[in-house]
Amino acid sequence: MSASQLESLEKTLETYLPPEELKEVRRILFGNDTKKLELPQSAVEAAAERNFELQGCAFEAAREQLRQPRAVRVGLIQNAIVLPTDAPVMEQISALHRRVADMVEVAALCGVNIVCFQEAWTMPFAFCTREKAPWTEFAESAEEGPTTCFCQELAKKYNMVVVSPILERDEVHGGTLWNTAVVVSNSGTVLGKTRKNHIPRVGDFNESTYYMEGNTGHRVFQTQFGKIAVNICYGRHHPLNWFMYSMNGAEIIFNPSATVGDLSEPMWPIEARNAAIANHCFTCAINRVGTEHFKNEFTSGDGKKAHNDFGHFYGSSYVAAPDGSRSPGLSRTRDGLLVAELDLNLNRQISDKWSFKMTGRYEMYAQELAEAVRHDFKPSIVKE
Amino acid sequence: MSASQLESLEKTLETYLPPEELKEVRRILFGNDTKKLELPQSAVEAAAERNFELQGCAFEAAREQLRQPRAVRVGLIQNAIVLPTDAPVMEQISALHRRVADMVEVAALCGVNIVCFQEAWTMPFAFCTREKAPWTEFAESAEEGPTTCFCQELAKKYNMVVVSPILERDEVHGGTLWNTAVVVSNSGTVLGKTRKNHIPRVGDFNESTYYMEGNTGHRVFQTQFGKIAVNICYGRHHPLNWFMYSMNGAEIIFNPSATVGDLSEPMWPIEARNAAIANHCFTCAINRVGTEHFKNEFTSGDGKKAHNDFGHFYGSSYVAAPDGSRSPGLSRTRDGLLVAELDLNLNRQISDKWSFKMTGRYEMYAQELAEAVRHDFKPSIVKE
Repeated sequence: MSASQLESLEKTLETYLPPEELKEVRRILFGNDTKKLELPQSAVEAAAERNFELQGCAFEAAREQLRQPRAVRVGLIQNAIVLPTDAPVMEQISALHRRVADMVEVAALCGVNIVCFQEAWTMPFAFCTREKAPWTEFAESAEEGPTTCFCQELAKKYNMVVVSPILERDEVHGGTLWNTAVVVSNSGTVLGKTRKNHIPRVGDFNESTYYMEGNTGHRVFQTQFGKIAVNICYGRHHPLNWFMYSMNGAEIIFNPSATVGDLSEPMWPIEARNAAIANHCFTCAINRVGTEHFKNEFTSGDGKKAHNDFGHFYGSSYVAAPDGSRSPGLSRTRDGLLVAELDLNLNRQISDKWSFKMTGRYEMYAQELAEAVRHDFKPSIVKE
Repeated sequence: MSASQLESLEKTLETYLPPEELKEVRRILFGNDTKKLELPQSAVEAAAERNFELQGCAFEAAREQLRQPRAVRVGLIQNAIVLPTDAPVMEQISALHRRVADMVEVAALCGVNIVCFQEAWTMPFAFCTREKAPWTEFAESAEEGPTTCFCQELAKKYNMVVVSPILERDEVHGGTLWNTAVVVSNSGTVLGKTRKNHIPRVGDFNESTYYMEGNTGHRVFQTQFGKIAVNICYGRHHPLNWFMYSMNGAEIIFNPSATVGDLSEPMWPIEARNAAIANHCFTCAINRVGTEHFKNEFTSGDGKKAHNDFGHFYGSSYVAAPDGSRSPGLSRTRDGLLVAELDLNLNRQISDKWSFKMTGRYEMYAQELAEAVRHDFKPSIVKE
């Protein structure tokens, strides 16, 4: 059984475990059961026809006396590239625009308020090639590029916040490239952009060949549906990154990613979920699917032969909640849309229960961290 | 099926999944397979006779040219209390000493170099009662108490580092209590002590009824077998706590705990494992087992009726590695000893591969955190 053949962990467990054991295994693995969300028949049919998986679930919170429930529906979209990687650049972009437009239309039918696409969603994840051409041609202005215009249209049409992670060309600063998420308000206005804070140098990738560490800090976007932040891809390995978005008030942190099985699959269900628990917020982990082939061979720098692809993007997008529960994952092999209804009241309820922020002793850490980064830092080591 | 009936997640999966699916599910859930460690027959028999589970596994690293493998064997001990909670204090302590001595003897047969016991291992986890008597009588001097003397004997006898988490009475500072781990060198010398940094106010517990936040920082103990740290219980919810032990050089971080199913079980497999991944080190999560009954009823502060126990300690102790893999968990219901052989070379190998420390941008975080703790902190929020 190759990595690309198992469709999903959850479905495998459901197939083989007896009901009693399944229930207990699910509790231990996934926490409190999420409620299945009833989605309109029109959406179910459109998803089937357009050949992508559609799942819906709801995270509920206790009723409060003074606050109404704050239900918001998020949509996580994972997809394979549409055209071969050597098709003309504009054709590749247009095909992805069309594919994602088809999926967003279904998200709208499902009442999604905030949709987020995968990392660098308008292009193949070509940064493994080390080649600059034609990949840098996929870069666009975050404020005025065709993809942002496309997202603005969607946002207005569907009254939906759109989080659009792209390869950004920053003309104002010498035409530099960035790995950036553009946040478009449901009004259609570009609310702002936020850049990937941590840049990998691992396996097939030294992404700093293309773009450097982001300089937009840990800003949070106040939308009509809640305060959101975007922790792009490799930033999910850095607990401090999640933490600082949370300190700035993020209620939902999206993690648009692109990562393959051999590299990271066992870490995938752990990191975004730990972040939701540790920071009393919701996290949404999104990964692309499929295997992308490139014309010219490249090396992974791992002593093995050069190759034309670097493995299977395993999808498995999911939502994690502050109470330790999580949604089922989307398919490991198919395009998919996960619609999750989040009652944002859960964040404060869990914070009041567990009180990690209150017990966090951040002043101590600010001081210790300031010492730890000094070049002449002396670790605190006890010897016999 | 009640929470106490499922013996272990791993065994349930092994029972029902076909071999091919099991392999793939195990890869996704647990990462690279750990090697099963062959343990001496004498140890296997002694464990059976003494009625505790014995498991062994090994985490391997690649061979290097300039460093020898750095194999160290750690022993994680989880156990139920032995006598009822209203037995005389000294009898309860002595019974636990005898039980743990029996288990450490088996650890020695298995070649364990560093053993760690569960949180407050010499007593029931009575902090739910809010009563001071007789529980504070379980407190001892970290340097000279009978339990530390007991551990020194074990350490010398078996050439083993002993990590002994106790309720500490600090006579030098007005007889205050602390939740403390004593680290005894394999020479028998008390290497030092380290205190619980984060104190819960959650569910049945406000442990600050008994002891406050620790004042020993994030010290790391240089032992003959590697650099170790101890992150006690609730500290596992705080990513910064793990992180700072790691910044001080910890290669193995123990997390002696006491936690029950309804409260935390779905978080248990996530947090210590995320810490191993994020910090390029090994982590060892240890939880007690069984249900502890108290004579006087107490409340959980959750609107429900007062009760005499607060739930089932679900054991499930495990070891997590920096590459995202983990050991099977010990039983949810039985006493157990998990022997894990760790090649500490793996830490640097994974650090060189993933480079989280190199890409961590800690100077930025030191600065942002210093701002975030100010009472007049202004979060970075983008509005329309």
